[in-house]
Amino acid sequence: MAKAWNYNAGPSMIPVSVMEKAQKEFTDYNGLGLGIVEMSHRSAEYDAVAKNAEKLLRELLNIPDNYKVLFEQGGGRGQFAAICLNLLPEGGKADYFVTGHWSRCAYKECAEKYGEAILHECTEVDDNGQYFINYDKMQVTEGSSYAYLCYNETVNGLELNRLPDTGDVPLVIDMSSNILTRSIDVSKFGVIMFGAQKNVGPSGLTVTIVREDLLGSARKYCPSVFDWSVLAKFDSMYNTPTTFSWYMAGLAFEWIKEQGGVAELERRNIEKSNLLYDYVDNQDFYSCPIRREDRSRVNCVFTLKDESLNQEFLARAKELNLIGLKGHKVLGGMRASIYNAMPLEGVEVLVSFLKSFAKEHS
Amino acid sequence: MAKAWNYNAGPSMIPVSVMEKAQKEFTDYNGLGLGIVEMSHRSAEYDAVAKNAEKLLRELLNIPDNYKVLFEQGGGRGQFAAICLNLLPEGGKADYFVTGHWSRCAYKECAEKYGEAILHECTEVDDNGQYFINYDKMQVTEGSSYAYLCYNETVNGLELNRLPDTGDVPLVIDMSSNILTRSIDVSKFGVIMFGAQKNVGPSGLTVTIVREDLLGSARKYCPSVFDWSVLAKFDSMYNTPTTFSWYMAGLAFEWIKEQGGVAELERRNIEKSNLLYDYVDNQDFYSCPIRREDRSRVNCVFTLKDESLNQEFLARAKELNLIGLKGHKVLGGMRASIYNAMPLEGVEVLVSFLKSFAKEHS
Repeated sequence: MAKAWNYNAGPSMIPVSVMEKAQKEFTDYNGLGLGIVEMSHRSAEYDAVAKNAEKLLRELLNIPDNYKVLFEQGGGRGQFAAICLNLLPEGGKADYFVTGHWSRCAYKECAEKYGEAILHECTEVDDNGQYFINYDKMQVTEGSSYAYLCYNETVNGLELNRLPDTGDVPLVIDMSSNILTRSIDVSKFGVIMFGAQKNVGPSGLTVTIVREDLLGSARKYCPSVFDWSVLAKFDSMYNTPTTFSWYMAGLAFEWIKEQGGVAELERRNIEKSNLLYDYVDNQDFYSCPIRREDRSRVNCVFTLKDESLNQEFLARAKELNLIGLKGHKVLGGMRASIYNAMPLEGVEVLVSFLKSFAKEHS
Repeated sequence: MAKAWNYNAGPSMIPVSVMEKAQKEFTDYNGLGLGIVEMSHRSAEYDAVAKNAEKLLRELLNIPDNYKVLFEQGGGRGQFAAICLNLLPEGGKADYFVTGHWSRCAYKECAEKYGEAILHECTEVDDNGQYFINYDKMQVTEGSSYAYLCYNETVNGLELNRLPDTGDVPLVIDMSSNILTRSIDVSKFGVIMFGAQKNVGPSGLTVTIVREDLLGSARKYCPSVFDWSVLAKFDSMYNTPTTFSWYMAGLAFEWIKEQGGVAELERRNIEKSNLLYDYVDNQDFYSCPIRREDRSRVNCVFTLKDESLNQEFLARAKELNLIGLKGHKVLGGMRASIYNAMPLEGVEVLVSFLKSFAKEHS
């Protein structure tokens, strides 16, 4: 079958040139006579791959020297626990600004297992029935150890367009679905974490960028592999990392640099999402349940006004090998995830399909 | 450079046909127009890949129906914590039969973080200066929640040749370096866990085989991603797994089946290790510091009697692209890891090199 247009929420599309390079050197990396997946993580050759990936990420995000970059396993959900285990003292409290599915999951992990998680419901519905983020609800509690945020809610299609002022309380942010899709000032955060499987590469890699002064206070019963200070001490090689995902992350960082860096990708992501949202907002067959300024640039949710056509819509899309458009089960509707690797052409193809499907059924 | 002979302890060699298949379908799996690494773990196509891998593993190890097979992240070290968090009640105790580096690491994780870990030092040195396993030391303590063992000590080159009788106390065993290299009776164990990066495939995948009656007692503060009952409930898809490593594990399981299954691999592993040990035992240039019956079939440690030649030995090996022969830093000397994927030819090449190096320096 022809190349798929892959709108899955993650794992998702990887740039064609990155895939081709990884394929080419899969069985023989750099003429060494073995593949990256076969290589000891302690070898000089692999160490160079790993270090280079970190160097590129530091460059792309302009990460200050007083931040550690940790390459880990366990996914975002693993970090939901690790955040509490590393930052929340026994008997302490933390603020959770909940805007959707994933920040709620992070809140629950904390509240059910680790201590006083203070819930702030920050997503509301306006008089037009559209979701929006109420930034006024993002107020830190006195004595809070950190304030938790999800920068982009993959399931709900909501993305922050500004950050709350939390004063001296460290901001801890999940950027799993929008890392490297927009410029950020790393120094504004205490911790940034992301899974790699949306904007970077294969699953199995989770990156935590943490300000050094926040290290060293893990709870006694924190598993060593989730103790950030242990990972920092061993340069993320305390135990065998997911070597292939780390390597492919490096290829993706190289690709982003070649494209012109994060600023250029941000420009493209605005262009791509505007193309889709402009169409959705200017006809009557589809609609978007989110107020325009709070919509995600990378997870674009929309609904068919006649929901009885959903199955046919998805079946027709699949015939054209447009895959992954079904919305998350907790929300329903449709969702197109158009991460960094998705070119403008992929959004044009999608809009063109939306138009023709609407025309046939109007 | 020519194909390397890769004696690394892990990640290590993967069968040539497995590597070639993975390379061939890397950018287009099964004609779907996208690669495995780009595929949603929730898609029907990936689900089939995942389920098939589990089915094959169950077949190869003849895993009884009352055992769950969990595909996880976090490595053996992650499981060192998970074992305590899932099996050891607050205030409880567990026996650790320590035979080398990795069982000692598991013991330390438990003792330092989770409760009363009872240390049994089971490796001793005999009058000839050779290490051996003292099975008489493997006695369970009354009231113990489990007895912990490492079936094969990757660093030390020791492998159990029998199992202790622990009565009703569940045996928990780390088989990271010898899973699928020898026949086992799964029903004798409470828990079997292994990292994939030695005998199976790429790193980033850890498999836990757990008897169902041991599920459901995790400590409150166990991270959800380490709670085996949560993973069991969600068929190891509680969160995004390391999809590529899981897929390649499936390819390796298929390969093992084609070779004739675990019994045939065991025969080959005996043949391969005997070839090496027979040579090492019958000359004076090299020696093995372990009593013959306790030597590992997969991690063969040996020393040069004149240690001042170590650097030259490794340099000459590297010229021939024989890599990964340096022993672990805690033990020194040399180590050849000859896992399932290493053909007899690879051991013949190694012995031939040992002979010629000895001849030149005698």
